[in-house]
Amino acid sequence: MPETKRLNIAMIGSGFIARAHSNAFHQVGRFFDVPYSLGLKAVCGRNQTKLQAFARQWGWAEICSDWQEVVGRKDIDVVDIAVPNALHAPIAMAAAKAGKMIFCEKPLAMSLPEAQTMAAAVKDLPNLVWFNYRRVPAVAFAKQLITEGKLGKVYHYRSYYFNQSGVDPAKGQTWRYRAGEAGSGAIGDLLSHSIDMALDLNGQIAELSAMKHTFTPGREVDDAVAVMVHFANGSLGTFEASRFGVGRRNGIGFEVYGEKGSLAFDLEDMNRLRFYESTEPPSLQAYKNILVTGPDQPYSANFWKPGHLIGYEHTFIATLGDFLQTLAYREPFHPNFYDAVRTQAVLEAVEASTAAGNWVKPQAK
Amino acid sequence: MPETKRLNIAMIGSGFIARAHSNAFHQVGRFFDVPYSLGLKAVCGRNQTKLQAFARQWGWAEICSDWQEVVGRKDIDVVDIAVPNALHAPIAMAAAKAGKMIFCEKPLAMSLPEAQTMAAAVKDLPNLVWFNYRRVPAVAFAKQLITEGKLGKVYHYRSYYFNQSGVDPAKGQTWRYRAGEAGSGAIGDLLSHSIDMALDLNGQIAELSAMKHTFTPGREVDDAVAVMVHFANGSLGTFEASRFGVGRRNGIGFEVYGEKGSLAFDLEDMNRLRFYESTEPPSLQAYKNILVTGPDQPYSANFWKPGHLIGYEHTFIATLGDFLQTLAYREPFHPNFYDAVRTQAVLEAVEASTAAGNWVKPQAK
Amino acid sequence: MPETKRLNIAMIGSGFIARAHSNAFHQVGRFFDVPYSLGLKAVCGRNQTKLQAFARQWGWAEICSDWQEVVGRKDIDVVDIAVPNALHAPIAMAAAKAGKMIFCEKPLAMSLPEAQTMAAAVKDLPNLVWFNYRRVPAVAFAKQLITEGKLGKVYHYRSYYFNQSGVDPAKGQTWRYRAGEAGSGAIGDLLSHSIDMALDLNGQIAELSAMKHTFTPGREVDDAVAVMVHFANGSLGTFEASRFGVGRRNGIGFEVYGEKGSLAFDLEDMNRLRFYESTEPPSLQAYKNILVTGPDQPYSANFWKPGHLIGYEHTFIATLGDFLQTLAYREPFHPNFYDAVRTQAVLEAVEASTAAGNWVKPQAK
Amino acid sequence: MPETKRLNIAMIGSGFIARAHSNAFHQVGRFFDVPYSLGLKAVCGRNQTKLQAFARQWGWAEICSDWQEVVGRKDIDVVDIAVPNALHAPIAMAAAKAGKMIFCEKPLAMSLPEAQTMAAAVKDLPNLVWFNYRRVPAVAFAKQLITEGKLGKVYHYRSYYFNQSGVDPAKGQTWRYRAGEAGSGAIGDLLSHSIDMALDLNGQIAELSAMKHTFTPGREVDDAVAVMVHFANGSLGTFEASRFGVGRRNGIGFEVYGEKGSLAFDLEDMNRLRFYESTEPPSLQAYKNILVTGPDQPYSANFWKPGHLIGYEHTFIATLGDFLQTLAYREPFHPNFYDAVRTQAVLEAVEASTAAGNWVKPQAK
Repeated sequence: MPETKRLNIAMIGSGFIARAHSNAFHQVGRFFDVPYSLGLKAVCGRNQTKLQAFARQWGWAEICSDWQEVVGRKDIDVVDIAVPNALHAPIAMAAAKAGKMIFCEKPLAMSLPEAQTMAAAVKDLPNLVWFNYRRVPAVAFAKQLITEGKLGKVYHYRSYYFNQSGVDPAKGQTWRYRAGEAGSGAIGDLLSHSIDMALDLNGQIAELSAMKHTFTPGREVDDAVAVMVHFANGSLGTFEASRFGVGRRNGIGFEVYGEKGSLAFDLEDMNRLRFYESTEPPSLQAYKNILVTGPDQPYSANFWKPGHLIGYEHTFIATLGDFLQTLAYREPFHPNFYDAVRTQAVLEAVEASTAAGNWVKPQAK
Repeated sequence: MPETKRLNIAMIGSGFIARAHSNAFHQVGRFFDVPYSLGLKAVCGRNQTKLQAFARQWGWAEICSDWQEVVGRKDIDVVDIAVPNALHAPIAMAAAKAGKMIFCEKPLAMSLPEAQTMAAAVKDLPNLVWFNYRRVPAVAFAKQLITEGKLGKVYHYRSYYFNQSGVDPAKGQTWRYRAGEAGSGAIGDLLSHSIDMALDLNGQIAELSAMKHTFTPGREVDDAVAVMVHFANGSLGTFEASRFGVGRRNGIGFEVYGEKGSLAFDLEDMNRLRFYESTEPPSLQAYKNILVTGPDQPYSANFWKPGHLIGYEHTFIATLGDFLQTLAYREPFHPNFYDAVRTQAVLEAVEASTAAGNWVKPQAK
Repeated sequence: MPETKRLNIAMIGSGFIARAHSNAFHQVGRFFDVPYSLGLKAVCGRNQTKLQAFARQWGWAEICSDWQEVVGRKDIDVVDIAVPNALHAPIAMAAAKAGKMIFCEKPLAMSLPEAQTMAAAVKDLPNLVWFNYRRVPAVAFAKQLITEGKLGKVYHYRSYYFNQSGVDPAKGQTWRYRAGEAGSGAIGDLLSHSIDMALDLNGQIAELSAMKHTFTPGREVDDAVAVMVHFANGSLGTFEASRFGVGRRNGIGFEVYGEKGSLAFDLEDMNRLRFYESTEPPSLQAYKNILVTGPDQPYSANFWKPGHLIGYEHTFIATLGDFLQTLAYREPFHPNFYDAVRTQAVLEAVEASTAAGNWVKPQAK
Repeated sequence: MPETKRLNIAMIGSGFIARAHSNAFHQVGRFFDVPYSLGLKAVCGRNQTKLQAFARQWGWAEICSDWQEVVGRKDIDVVDIAVPNALHAPIAMAAAKAGKMIFCEKPLAMSLPEAQTMAAAVKDLPNLVWFNYRRVPAVAFAKQLITEGKLGKVYHYRSYYFNQSGVDPAKGQTWRYRAGEAGSGAIGDLLSHSIDMALDLNGQIAELSAMKHTFTPGREVDDAVAVMVHFANGSLGTFEASRFGVGRRNGIGFEVYGEKGSLAFDLEDMNRLRFYESTEPPSLQAYKNILVTGPDQPYSANFWKPGHLIGYEHTFIATLGDFLQTLAYREPFHPNFYDAVRTQAVLEAVEASTAAGNWVKPQAK
């Protein structure tokens, strides 16, 4: 490893997700051996009183109100974008122009062309999109098992993401329910995670047909979406995402059925992966419920010991840990802006299909 | 209750499902108080040696090789159809002509017009279609909770049926894989159950879009199917059925999300129903895993005691028990041939949508 | 197999458990290939009106009020004892004197000496004790895995049996709560099953220390019992049984931890066995949740198909099926009266330890 | 809240648990609103090279090799003891003499008299024992439900703690297997946690009978222990703890059965609590599987959002958060040294009972 280098961060945004980012910036060095020390230099937001409290709680050296100013500062190495979707592009473009490393929340953009423009702008700069669920240890372990061929040819990829955030009409007042700021509802908020995970685990989507629906009268964005797909590898896929899944809190999951076995994951039980192998003796073929906290499983050795669970925040830490390691070795990091463009292409095809009522091929990159 | 009356049955077919029917004919009187005694009079099949053994094991008085002959016999009151799909219609029509009560395996027919013809023919005769999973106590309890309004307005109905029966190419030699005898694959075999259950639990389907796929080269029927639907009640639905669900044995299930709560069921854990109520105090809102074996839950009092589980065969017994009770009181029984026509209309729309690649409205009855 | 022979049964008792026996007598021939046809000849009880209804519902040819008379009848081959514990011995002794085959409910006797006398009396007659839970397929499969050495040396055997039958004071009026008829409470009713299972799965108990308690003032028998044991094989054991396990309906289960793996079973999820192998690759070591309904697993091929669950009643059918098969081949059947004596010796030691407050060695047979 | 005050910490020890402490010292201020800023001033250990790396990774300002020196330093406010059990007393006594606040790992002491001496020494100093599992949100929620009377009178308290740490003979080389440093094996390491939790949830233990066993020849400490108890509240209790629970990683859990309901918890599924209420309508009585991550449940609002799980490390953060809040308000904190004395008294009674083979009353405080 090269010598430790200081990276100063400016984070734009101070909401819930900005807490998760801040935490990861502090914690990554405790759990990952990376040759960087991160400086939580400046946090940008509108309400300076609240921002002051946020900065104190989360250890940011300065607060600022003008992201355009801070993005261009010489003492800033990384710009972290943790604001509503509509601001991703202007901030990312400005940061790219200033030559900064860029971290951006998901979904990357408001549209496919916007995403493509952003990806082109950052192509020579280290960049990251916070599709953090790829780094759930159980998800990374699923990826490993699939890559090793443990499932053989895949037949079915089933995905869902349900929470109940949309049921309460009062919730409808936040930016997530305004088309101008969010772009979409369940599609960008929830489905984007499912698509990122699916592209990573099961490859490209060749064609899809989708439906979406808004249950709440007057709401500007979709409350729910369903998609049927043909993957390029010949498997069938289904996706469903909704803010009206009463009873589910943060219920993203998937099932993958292949010729040699199958896998199932659910984030509300995130330390476990269910795995079935049809290559075992018939009487012993069954789903295992694997507690993914062991030294031979992804990320677990970075954190605690077998049987000592981790949680939500660790997915951000692991994302950042991997990013910094690839940065040290000048290797590509995933998911980056280009990966997010592929996800955005699928989301765009979903919108097109719901409008036309037929099958649509996501625009190839 | 009226006095006990004898009903003599002729069963056409002697395969796996004929065992389940035979068992129910013997057992119904032990668990249901019905004013009928059932005579297992004659079982019809092709291989007389095997049939003889079947009759001895399952207590049938006679064997016969010619269903056309037996269907017309004066001493037969009920014709039970337990043969491949293509034979349902001819046997049912003959039995109807002879004025018999008719029980028929699912799916009712090879096509919607055929189903309609059959339903018209039996309209004045007591009749039953063996969509037995409606009578899983947990499913009947779900129906009761929905009917009582415990879920309120329904947002999502999710359904699946996975087994792994299609993966072994050797299996492809049975009638279930021949278009001429089965009509379809996963659609008629698996999806039909899911649709029957959905229509019962969540009402009519207004519009659907579907995909199907055959993984095995040369196989005549579909191995898998997926469907997105708009229900008439405004909820969204998804269905998936496949014979390539490696790891699943008989995995039919559903999830229903409504404004006041949600439900989940899986047949591989058939004595339980998961139920969530959003009307409870926030800190106690959670899925219950209800063991449906109590005296206050459907059918359970007919069988054993709380905590004493029942199994697959009891769904046939309960179906028959209900049929005989409605017969005694001259009330309509469900699911009957007309109910099965509605299911067939959905299956037909599924086929049409997969062919055309767009949304299709099931033909209204 | 020899030719089919008729066996006429007289059953003494007509309560809940007599229903389960009756059902098994009817059903065994449908699921097990045995060279016997069973005649449900006579059922004995006190209330002749209720008994008449019972006989009609469960297919008994005659009813009778005097067990002593029927036990000696020439046309009776088997005496089945399904009455309160205090009557087991007199009926069994009379039936033995008359040279009948004898089936007896558990626990076998009111005391160890009584059990020993009974066992001596039947030693030349085919006999069976209805410890039916040995024949849960998942339990039989556990036995098979242990016998094959899949666990290696056993370290821990943990057992429990909880229901909530004792909580309702109204329940306290039945014979199960009267010392003169039941002998004990949770000990004979629940713990006896756990001990029978443990002796079968893990061998003899060398020494034990126990506590018991009656929560309900004035109740004559124990409501709950706990036991710590040293097994002869060097493993440690714990047992707990209670009628005050609010929330549990029929919750008997066990966990076995050995050097190469571990097992867990719970009757409220009776079609499954959890199994862990420490011989697998570290990253894949996990509990499997095996659905024990496959052709390579015990009993399952006798009943339905993979994924088609069975229930409580099938454990009686399987017990009877095995008995009749061993009878045909003149092989010993287990659990018989001698096996039940060993269980009774443990129960007696449990009582002695609770009285003395120290460790007791069950009296060796 | 008073103004923020600086507290400088010296931590003695740099093993696994010292990582968990260090993490909590850094993180507590992010998640708990406490009027203290913690200074990670000095970490003490033997191997200075390793210690240097530890200090860098975990943000300690200085390293030191002589705990006696650091404990007396004026600039130290808190002494945190994270070393093998035999060193707890000498360090705690020295720290007490120097008037420091003291945090100590569990079990507090090597014997009851030692624990009593330590407790007396710190009685006027803020102190804490790291029985961190009390602060699992699900456990704290269980405590709340019990305190609110949701279970009514308690009948049974069942507790277990299984891991597989003892099976590998190579593990036997660490201090945890040496009597001189650890005092005991499973008793101090595992059972102590279970007892602390039980005393907190179900009150004092009146009497107990215990067994222990060492499976590994030549090992100085117990590998496993089992205990039966009478609680002072009239309930029965069982405890089992073992390092030979093959398949379990960190499997501490409990079940509590009361007249109005029951609870179950397992640390390997730590974000959930199972809860049953017998006061609900009969058909809806069932175990809920409560995801304890909501704003109305303990600690959850301190961390992330509903459905966003937390892990092992957060139990230390919550322990520390509560300690600092009670410190601010000069309220007593639990578990403190006196609480740990009560736990030690039970452990001492366990040892006495295993030696004598009879029932023992833990020495009252």
